[in-house]
Amino acid sequence: MSIQSFHPPVRTLMGPGPSDVNPRILEAMSRPTVGHLDPVFVALMDEMKDLLRYAFRTKNDLTMPVSAPGSAGMEMCFVNLVEPGDKVIVCQNGVFGGRMKENVERCGGTAVMVEDDWGRAVDAEKVEAALKANPDAKILAFVHAETSTGAISDAKTLAELARANDCLVIADTVTSLAGSPLLVDEWQLDAVYSGTQKCLSCVPGLSPVTFSQKAVDTVTSRKTRVQSWFLDLNLVLGYWGGGGKRTYHHTAPVNTLYGLHEALVILQEEGIENSWARHQKNHEALRAGFEAMGLEFVVPEGERLPQLNAVSIPDGVDEAAVRSALLSSYNLEIGAGLGAMAGKIWRVGLMGFASNETNVLFCLGALDAVLSGMRAPINSGVAVDAARAVYR
Amino acid sequence: MSIQSFHPPVRTLMGPGPSDVNPRILEAMSRPTVGHLDPVFVALMDEMKDLLRYAFRTKNDLTMPVSAPGSAGMEMCFVNLVEPGDKVIVCQNGVFGGRMKENVERCGGTAVMVEDDWGRAVDAEKVEAALKANPDAKILAFVHAETSTGAISDAKTLAELARANDCLVIADTVTSLAGSPLLVDEWQLDAVYSGTQKCLSCVPGLSPVTFSQKAVDTVTSRKTRVQSWFLDLNLVLGYWGGGGKRTYHHTAPVNTLYGLHEALVILQEEGIENSWARHQKNHEALRAGFEAMGLEFVVPEGERLPQLNAVSIPDGVDEAAVRSALLSSYNLEIGAGLGAMAGKIWRVGLMGFASNETNVLFCLGALDAVLSGMRAPINSGVAVDAARAVYR
Repeated sequence: MSIQSFHPPVRTLMGPGPSDVNPRILEAMSRPTVGHLDPVFVALMDEMKDLLRYAFRTKNDLTMPVSAPGSAGMEMCFVNLVEPGDKVIVCQNGVFGGRMKENVERCGGTAVMVEDDWGRAVDAEKVEAALKANPDAKILAFVHAETSTGAISDAKTLAELARANDCLVIADTVTSLAGSPLLVDEWQLDAVYSGTQKCLSCVPGLSPVTFSQKAVDTVTSRKTRVQSWFLDLNLVLGYWGGGGKRTYHHTAPVNTLYGLHEALVILQEEGIENSWARHQKNHEALRAGFEAMGLEFVVPEGERLPQLNAVSIPDGVDEAAVRSALLSSYNLEIGAGLGAMAGKIWRVGLMGFASNETNVLFCLGALDAVLSGMRAPINSGVAVDAARAVYR
Repeated sequence: MSIQSFHPPVRTLMGPGPSDVNPRILEAMSRPTVGHLDPVFVALMDEMKDLLRYAFRTKNDLTMPVSAPGSAGMEMCFVNLVEPGDKVIVCQNGVFGGRMKENVERCGGTAVMVEDDWGRAVDAEKVEAALKANPDAKILAFVHAETSTGAISDAKTLAELARANDCLVIADTVTSLAGSPLLVDEWQLDAVYSGTQKCLSCVPGLSPVTFSQKAVDTVTSRKTRVQSWFLDLNLVLGYWGGGGKRTYHHTAPVNTLYGLHEALVILQEEGIENSWARHQKNHEALRAGFEAMGLEFVVPEGERLPQLNAVSIPDGVDEAAVRSALLSSYNLEIGAGLGAMAGKIWRVGLMGFASNETNVLFCLGALDAVLSGMRAPINSGVAVDAARAVYR
């Protein structure tokens, strides 16, 4: 066996994530490793919490990155808040609501499902009915931005309904954080998790989370032990908690945290409202281009995520061959459909650093070229102009 | 709020890990991110599994890195193998055996503890007695290399005892992998987890694991569902499993995996036996220096880990002040005691890239200077010469 060093091609990442990573972040990750209890690292952790509070628009004390991907952030929310026998209302309008159900059940809870069509926002009326029908429910869980379909739901309204029925709110914001307005305190979301590889444009591997005081009180007054040692907030807090001495829990992923710190510094420099506006603008340009080509959005206007554009595959087009040609000829990655949407849609991400005019025009041009070459039934040659008109 | 980019000092890391990261690894991590389902990344994953099999000395199909730190690797072993009601014999001779007990109990299992003094190897006779007294035990779990004390246990003998009593073996090799002989197949260890930030000299954040066919069969024939979604091997296998199509499970930490791949390429270049020998040689030199100064090892000879040297604090020395002075004057990190050893010992790591003659002499010189400056009762000025003699 003689395996050589790995040198990846330079891709443009316009799938559902990871998105293109800002080179400043890659460089930050390559800085010298320090110990995870080093005073300079502890200072970095404090800054990180402040930066995450800025990104989440919250003052929550308990705001930190989990040392594992978004799926672990999801699991941290559920294993800490759900005890055996608890009832959780779970909204499903795509893949990730189904994963929430799995989490509830593995914690010994009961999931009451509120189902919506994939590609639509969560229907607040159905949620209200479910809450009324289940007055003993403890938690309402929903996905703010469904990465599998590109739909955004009205987190503010859903949280209000939950509160009126005395339920805690768990919200998946993996794809919304920094890309779409997300106001954790104003909307009173109790347990919120996200990812680093979407609109923060950092590498994958960490999951920022934030917990309201009500959520923390629920965790600290549990009757049963949290089933996960690694994700038990009572223990993690000893390391990430404010003030005083840091207690060793696990070895933090030091260099990846350098990367997240840099990603959040970049967000702070741009200003989060500007980041939201930039994602919206580039979405509008991409949409103009897609529509000019004749591609149809999966999600109705008004429920679309600007950072994740799901479009139906035109009739007669081999969707996998198109993605493969984009990758091999243009080093461009766009996403396939997931779960029930597999084979039916493409998902084109405009996330974080990748949400820019250059990428919009490049993607439209490349897609147009590939589809034309396959004699696909599209309006060729008009997409880039339509998108450029949005920027003028 | 205006937080700036983080620029860490350049430390020499000679604590219990993270250890100094080879600059080749830092550079590899800063290469352009590709998608986690990109064909080039899938090829990297296959190479990674081969490289890990080399490091673990195994042919196990199921050999891969968990996308989270060693604590999550530990949890993956326990949540997949332990079902409610299962009895697990857990050896404790330091902090990490206690963590295993926590894991067993959180899975609904019963932990039968075999206790040894901290700083000693696990006593095979006690284990044999425990196995005899508990014929219904399903698993024997032990720590091969106790990072909290610097003791190594006889994994081969312990595994033989387990096998004779029809028990599976879970072994913590976080600190032994690549630093001390570890022969997973020859010793027939069933579920083995490690870390990246010790003798592989990679950044922290991943946990290499390997499972025997017997362990896999146990997982796939469980009566109950694995309580963790993130760590459920039945699901993770769809992504990391051999051959065929990769199913999305979670977004892999792409750039950190670049780093681990490079760390394993470096190990393959050196040859694992050479790596073991290098760790041994540098330990002998450090030991000569420590003994010349009058510092006493916590662990008796024959049970010492070469890569983690635990020594008692000399009378009248403020141990925290010494570590603080080493850090501020020399940018040198050594480790404090953990758990019951807090305040009583220092832990000096010679792990991976950090296990070299320069570091040995530098550490002895710096420690000598700091202790002499504090008028500590040590033999000053002789340590470096004693260590150098080992290299001549």
